[in-house]
Amino acid sequence: MCEAVVFINRGGELEKVMDDVVEVRPEEGKLLLVDVFGEQKLVSASIAEVELLDHRIILRESGG
Amino acid sequence: MCEAVVFINRGGELEKVMDDVVEVRPEEGKLLLVDVFGEQKLVSASIAEVELLDHRIILRESGG
Repeated sequence: MCEAVVFINRGGELEKVMDDVVEVRPEEGKLLLVDVFGEQKLVSASIAEVELLDHRIILRESGG
Repeated sequence: MCEAVVFINRGGELEKVMDDVVEVRPEEGKLLLVDVFGEQKLVSASIAEVELLDHRIILRESGG
């Protein structure tokens, strides 16, 4: 399997948002994260970076 | 290993940009794609969607 840990960059600090994420997609102007168990989380952010070797996805906060 | 195929959404059509990508990160206001062999490609786009079960990363074109 190929899951990733999703972090959000808050002023230079990486804060973990969700483990075992398999899908990140736009939804209602936000980002929907879905993990391997089907759990969902909607966050106000965009995707900044994907590091598959480290299994990390880094988000940046949406403006406002 | 956990690579992905990167596509760009051009007016609703997905066009393949690069195979076996392991890293996508911001660089010089664009996106730098790096594959498993270390090959690099710089594209004017942002990351729209990550589908790890399907090993796909979807980009959207930058405005302008």
